Amino acid sequence: MAGNETIVRIQFDEVVGLAEEIFIACGVGREESHMLSESLARADARGIMSHGVVRVPSYVDQFENGRFSKETRLDAVRETLFSTVLDANNGLGSVASYKSVELTKKKARENGIAFTAVRNSNHYGAAGLWSSMIAEDKDLIGFTSTTSILIVAAPTGAGRAIGSNPISIAVPAEMHPNLCLDISMGNMAQGKIWEYKRLNKPFPDDFWLGPDGEVTTDPNKFALEEYVMIPFGMHKGFGLGVVLEMLTSGLSGGAFHRQYVGFTKEQLPLCHCFGAMRIDAFMDPADYRKNVDEYIDYLHGLPSRHGAAPIMFPGEIEAKVEADAKMNGVKIPSQVLADMRASAVKYGVDTSAYAKFLSAAI
Amino acid sequence: MAGNETIVRIQFDEVVGLAEEIFIACGVGREESHMLSESLARADARGIMSHGVVRVPSYVDQFENGRFSKETRLDAVRETLFSTVLDANNGLGSVASYKSVELTKKKARENGIAFTAVRNSNHYGAAGLWSSMIAEDKDLIGFTSTTSILIVAAPTGAGRAIGSNPISIAVPAEMHPNLCLDISMGNMAQGKIWEYKRLNKPFPDDFWLGPDGEVTTDPNKFALEEYVMIPFGMHKGFGLGVVLEMLTSGLSGGAFHRQYVGFTKEQLPLCHCFGAMRIDAFMDPADYRKNVDEYIDYLHGLPSRHGAAPIMFPGEIEAKVEADAKMNGVKIPSQVLADMRASAVKYGVDTSAYAKFLSAAI
Repeated sequence: MAGNETIVRIQFDEVVGLAEEIFIACGVGREESHMLSESLARADARGIMSHGVVRVPSYVDQFENGRFSKETRLDAVRETLFSTVLDANNGLGSVASYKSVELTKKKARENGIAFTAVRNSNHYGAAGLWSSMIAEDKDLIGFTSTTSILIVAAPTGAGRAIGSNPISIAVPAEMHPNLCLDISMGNMAQGKIWEYKRLNKPFPDDFWLGPDGEVTTDPNKFALEEYVMIPFGMHKGFGLGVVLEMLTSGLSGGAFHRQYVGFTKEQLPLCHCFGAMRIDAFMDPADYRKNVDEYIDYLHGLPSRHGAAPIMFPGEIEAKVEADAKMNGVKIPSQVLADMRASAVKYGVDTSAYAKFLSAAI
Repeated sequence: MAGNETIVRIQFDEVVGLAEEIFIACGVGREESHMLSESLARADARGIMSHGVVRVPSYVDQFENGRFSKETRLDAVRETLFSTVLDANNGLGSVASYKSVELTKKKARENGIAFTAVRNSNHYGAAGLWSSMIAEDKDLIGFTSTTSILIVAAPTGAGRAIGSNPISIAVPAEMHPNLCLDISMGNMAQGKIWEYKRLNKPFPDDFWLGPDGEVTTDPNKFALEEYVMIPFGMHKGFGLGVVLEMLTSGLSGGAFHRQYVGFTKEQLPLCHCFGAMRIDAFMDPADYRKNVDEYIDYLHGLPSRHGAAPIMFPGEIEAKVEADAKMNGVKIPSQVLADMRASAVKYGVDTSAYAKFLSAAI
């Protein structure tokens, strides 16, 4: 992020609207453009800018060079009352995920529990979006994971072994925002390297390997995409990433990470999975949510270490940022707006409805 | 572990047999004694001695002082085709878990998927035992978690916040041993403190807090049970532990960690959960297991960091130790045998059938 950049506040619907118009102009259907745009804008609204509309130009490029199918056709490969295997035919990860979440929720409501595995898909954005969508009606617990490009090393390994393979679990609360765990298997998100590079600040010594397979603390020795993440908690994060792959690539019958060797960009068919379970199969959902609330209150009431921040629950930061974005608009860097404007101009999108916010672009 | 202690090799069935006779002599039923003894011996066989027959004298004490119910009555509180909530009436964790696993497998075979939550139980031993039991017939994926005493701090917290709250997922392979992830939320198992104490070796600086709420590297400053674990991966391990509690205490309607404050020993009603899912609901199980095998081969083929150990899959060490124990007998410290002998003598157990191995006791 450049030093002279400013952050602009844009209403959520406007962010979605402009991104949507751009994708439609690229030849993507209206419904699919909307699903993709909403997933990007929602990531921004939750403070996960790396997965937000900063990616619009990259999507445009990839539509242009035929990297993605503009249409996301989902074929059911195998199906039971609770299970579904879907082939996304190289369509959009967001669209495949949106539809998979809808299907998983529907089957869970009918059957009590449902699990969906998806293959031949693409990057699905922030995992927490999809588990949140499952838990948002307050009656279901939501689960998701996805494969990604190879980016995490094995605990004793010298190179790329597994993807960031995030796990997200969302659990409804009543008065508090829902609990939403969203963690990936690397010790630090790759996006944060930029900040260390900018400040020329050494990395902690358990975060990164260089392409030479050795631990590195030098943020300027390699290009961003050459660094390999050390897994969080070493064998624990690594092991979790391995078993999660058995639920994504494994159950969907899709591509495994063993087929990803040599690729460092997102150009491989990814696999996802989604789970939903009805709380009322176990106990009264209102009582359950009350217990979740009380547990959050318990966590909030615990003492902090001397000088340290208050204790927060999983998803609390994202929920706070999202509440603020709802009130005051989504924070978008002016450079990102400028890039969206360039994409809009390129495809002859009528941006008159967005003139006010585009004027805030650099 | 004392310096003059030796390790003895005992056949698995003999370890189970003597422990079983002791528990029967304490007034526990034969079937329940067998389930408890087998779970302890299996932990030893898998190299997890801290959860093995070293605990026999402690169980004996707890039967004596009425801490556990000798009978483990399981009442179904709520039930659907896939879900079950069980109340274990303060019975044995191993017995409740053994029966819950059987029920979960049965329901999963009938319904495709099953999830069981248990409340008012006690320590269930090593989580990996139960997920392994689910996956051992090669047709199901197994999942489990449990609460424990408060032992892990929040990332910025000064004291005990959550339990070790392990997660275990087991996935069947064909030629290789099954994958079995079994990780708890602390940065280091408490049992390992003994080794640091013995060698007077400083702890790594991100592993332990003292009861004063500050990070400590001094292994001899406090008693074993006064140290509090820092969560592995900080907010990641902590967050995972929090959402897992929503599947154990949460879904079972049992005691939450917020009710555990002030307790540092195992004397609180614990909650577990167990999940099982049929692989053939998604794809051909033989093809699935072949993919798992190939993925393991891929992991084994990855290069190690200079001077580091080969890359291993989750559960590989335990599987190797177990295969060796099957061939050559389970490794039991002679002091543990001596303690079992003392328990047997106290309860007038006829140990003539075990004379050979008891002679190896210190």
